[in-house]
This record gives sequence, C-alpha cells and structure tokens, in this order.
Amino acid sequence: MTDIQLQPGERLDGLPSQQIQIIQNPDMFSYSLDAVLLAYFAKPRKKGRGLSVDLGAGTGAIGLFYAQKVTGQVALVELQKDLAEMAGRSVALNGLSDRVKVINADMQAIYDQIKPGSVDTVLSNPPYFSVNETTKQNLDEHYQLARHEIAIDLPRLAQTANKLLKNNGKFYLVHRPDRLNDIMAALAARKLEVKRLQFVYGKPGREANMVLVEAIKGGGSGGVRVLPPIIAYTADDQYTDQVQEILYGQPWQL
Amino acid sequence: MTDIQLQPGERLDGLPSQQIQIIQNPDMFSYSLDAVLLAYFAKPRKKGRGLSVDLGAGTGAIGLFYAQKVTGQVALVELQKDLAEMAGRSVALNGLSDRVKVINADMQAIYDQIKPGSVDTVLSNPPYFSVNETTKQNLDEHYQLARHEIAIDLPRLAQTANKLLKNNGKFYLVHRPDRLNDIMAALAARKLEVKRLQFVYGKPGREANMVLVEAIKGGGSGGVRVLPPIIAYTADDQYTDQVQEILYGQPWQL
Repeated sequence: MTDIQLQPGERLDGLPSQQIQIIQNPDMFSYSLDAVLLAYFAKPRKKGRGLSVDLGAGTGAIGLFYAQKVTGQVALVELQKDLAEMAGRSVALNGLSDRVKVINADMQAIYDQIKPGSVDTVLSNPPYFSVNETTKQNLDEHYQLARHEIAIDLPRLAQTANKLLKNNGKFYLVHRPDRLNDIMAALAARKLEVKRLQFVYGKPGREANMVLVEAIKGGGSGGVRVLPPIIAYTADDQYTDQVQEILYGQPWQL
Repeated sequence: MTDIQLQPGERLDGLPSQQIQIIQNPDMFSYSLDAVLLAYFAKPRKKGRGLSVDLGAGTGAIGLFYAQKVTGQVALVELQKDLAEMAGRSVALNGLSDRVKVINADMQAIYDQIKPGSVDTVLSNPPYFSVNETTKQNLDEHYQLARHEIAIDLPRLAQTANKLLKNNGKFYLVHRPDRLNDIMAALAARKLEVKRLQFVYGKPGREANMVLVEAIKGGGSGGVRVLPPIIAYTADDQYTDQVQEILYGQPWQL
C-alpha cells in the first residue's frame, strides 16, 4: 500500500476477500455488487497471462478486483476524466502500477493504445438504461454517462469488444436481465457466442435483477451453461452466506 | 372420467393437482417434468377464452394439463400416429372431448385445420437435440422424432408458431439451456419477443437443465423478466416443496 491523499467527498471502499481498496466519491459514481460479482465470475485465460481490459471502468473496481486473479497486464479504459483520475490513484494505492494502467479515452478510440486482436479478456459493466428510458435522467453528468447509453450502447460495446479480442478471447458483461434480448442480439451480431450465464436474484422468491455473461469470440453456438443461481440477500436483508464469502472470505480461487 | 381400455405396454400416469390422467407407453415416449412445468408456467390470455395449440403434443400431456387452466378450445398436434391415437384416448378418458381435439399431422401442414393468425397461445416441448448430435440416435423411431430435430427444428418451429398466432399471442416453449443461443436467435428472427424466462435446476448448486420461455408475437424487445429459480430435487433426491406443490397440491391458480 502507498500513502494516498483523499480529496473532499471521497472515501475508501474495500473488498476484503481480494485485499483491494477503491477510492470512491458517492457524488459521482460508486461501484456496487455488480462489479464484485463480474470480477468473481470471470475466468482468466492462459493461467492469468496476457492482457485484460475493463471497458468503461469507472473508478476501476472490476479491473482492480480482477487484477488479483491474473499475473498479466490490465488496462482500465474510462471516458470520464474525474473517474479515470480516481482509478489511477486507486491503482497506486494498491501497489499495482506495474501491471495496471488507466486509459482516459473513449473506448471506441483506443486502438492506437490497445492493438486490435491483442486482448485475452474484456470485462464491462456498461450503462444499463437505453437513452429513451427517462429514469433518473435528472442525475448529474457522471451518473448520466455511467447509467445511460449515451456514450456507448450494446451494439457498439460488442463491436469494440470483438475488435479488441483475440480469437477465442473472452468477453465478460454484467447487465440487467430485462435487456437480455438486446444483449443476446448484440453479441450474436458480433460473433461473440454466449457460453456461460449466471442470474443474480435480490432475495429468495424474487425475479433476477442482474445477469453475468461470458461470451467467446468466434465460439460455436451450442453449449450454453447456466450456473447455479446467486441469491444476494436473505429475506431479512442480510448478505447470504454465498455473497458473504465472495466479499469477506478467502481470496477467490481460479 | 370414461371407461378406457389400456393396450399392452400402456400405463396411466396422473397429475393429481390438475386431476388429469395420461395414457403412456414407456416403450414409445413418456412425458416428464418438462411438460408439467411448461403447462404450469404458461399464462392463459383473455381469461382462458380463445384457442390454444400444443405443437408436437406427443401423448398430449402439456395440452391436457393446460386445458384445466382455460375454458376455450385446445388442439393437440402430433405427427406420430401411435402417439396421436393415445392422446385421443386420454382426451376421452378425461372427459374433455368437447374442448380438446387431436390433429394427427405435421405441424407445418395444418393451416387448413387451424387458420393462420387464429391462435391465442402456442405451447411446445420440441425435440431438444440437433441432428448432428449423435446422442441416443440408436433409439426407436418414436424416441428419435421426439428427441431429435428430424421432423422439426427451432427455426421452423418458430416460423410455425408465428404463422399460427394472432398479434400479441403467446408462444410457450420448454427447452435445454445449452440451446439458448439458438432459441433466442430463432425467436427473434420470427418477431417472437422473449418476455419471461424461468430456469429449472435439478438440485441445489447444480447448473440449470431446463428453461421455460414465454415470447409474444410482435412484442417490443425490452422488459425480459427472469422468474425465481425452480429447484426440482433436494440434495437427497426428493422433490422440493415447490415442485411437490405443483404436482400434488391444489389446482393451479391463474
């Protein structure tokens, strides 16, 4: 760990199981369980060697949690300057500057910095809401860009992931189940074949509120695996043992 | 109930909750939990009025279980003569001859008997295996046609359902999760928009082995709902309370 100066309004949020701390500012955008579960769900290729890229990294949560599972390089790509700057300080705070770098750019304009066809694993927690959904459009710009498909939508995200990935490279996505038709269509259109899905349910007896997706560039269309359900909270609003272990238990096994 | 003569090799299997009995012959093809759960999952339109069609009905299990949820007509379409004949006797056995009829024909050649655009609800438990999968291809012809996509495959099934359904009519399908890419693509290609999904897991901690799908003809692409998981068996091989209630509990509420 490195000494670090927090700015006004900032706080440190930790993921004890992975021994990572993330600088957050609740006024701008904070990571949530979605980011933790995607990093947990993702399986490194080639025993963790090679290049992984977090597209739309925000404060860098997914990429930093995932960095503990791999030995190779991780790039955090974030459009918003404030968030990218915070991610950079979190990289330093966790002593990962030799392996993790932040790229403050539009993910669709990074091919001079990340060569097409060079990436083993792409991870993304993209905006969940299409722009014609008016929900929460009154939030500030940081939230707008993080939550609404203004700067990036599913077809362009799939196109970007496809272009960056090697053949047989993996694309990991966390999204809302209500967008599943759009997700499946966007991935199929870019030859990103869905191979594993896992649905996350807020509580027992509730409908799913999150889906974790693994797709392989150029994979065949058969053999989708739907992993056992994750239930996030018990009926009395405590984390389930399953999620408690992911957050506070042993470092994640690969 | 009507007196009924069972043929050699036949037996009666009942679904107590719906008070339906089905004539089965284990040498040919028997319905399983898939059929029960699809009939349970399906929601009647228009308070149960209108026409429902079971495509590839086999011995008629889905259509007969579902007939108890509706007041309108139900057509059981089955290609195999032996199975269609058994389904006809099950219809009589359950005293449903006034509302349920059996059509012994290829589902793709029934438009003189069921007018295109006239159906409120299509239900189907189609063959699960594509023909290039060699699994169990050594079984007899009844099983071959019921299990392998020889007489019908997903694109042609979706085309048939689309042609039969009214606008906003519903298509209910039970299938294997490993075919989810093919299912979503086939439905999307025929403007059958997935609206509800429910995954069935054999036991706690296992991957899903069944998916229940509701699609609407001409529906918008947003708003997929993923219902709470169904776990079929406990760790010690008993039906879970959830499934026990579906099989042996009160008649299904609509």
